[in-house]
Amino acid sequence: MSKSIFYHAGCSVCVSAEHDIVNLIGSDNLEIVNIGEIRGRIEEAERAGVESVPALVTPNGNVLHINFGASMKDVRG
Amino acid sequence: MSKSIFYHAGCSVCVSAEHDIVNLIGSDNLEIVNIGEIRGRIEEAERAGVESVPALVTPNGNVLHINFGASMKDVRG
Repeated sequence: MSKSIFYHAGCSVCVSAEHDIVNLIGSDNLEIVNIGEIRGRIEEAERAGVESVPALVTPNGNVLHINFGASMKDVRG
Repeated sequence: MSKSIFYHAGCSVCVSAEHDIVNLIGSDNLEIVNIGEIRGRIEEAERAGVESVPALVTPNGNVLHINFGASMKDVRG
């Protein structure tokens, strides 16, 4: 199975959700990307359909927006 | 490990999220509750901190609100 990708921007809501997701699906099944730091991947996240972070993109390409930390507009700054 | 509880209300957003969550964490680790039908559990969900559905309450009691289907106010009707 390919990995899910968890996009976040380092905010407290994101960190809390990250811990929960790691506990639930396991770090082996997860790539974690801080798009606040790795800004070159913002566009990739947006193309995947990420509208806010934290968000989980599943192996089949669905986007689960989890709670609400920041909009992509805010991440772009 | 105790199970996570996935609360939903039968809406299309909920059904889509349910499939993704089942694929990610496995149906064995999940109790699925349709509070649109089992209305006696609305109060339990609200006490757990669920503000909208679909939502996942993790074994340690954190609430992950996933995408957005309906507010608890709408579920109560």
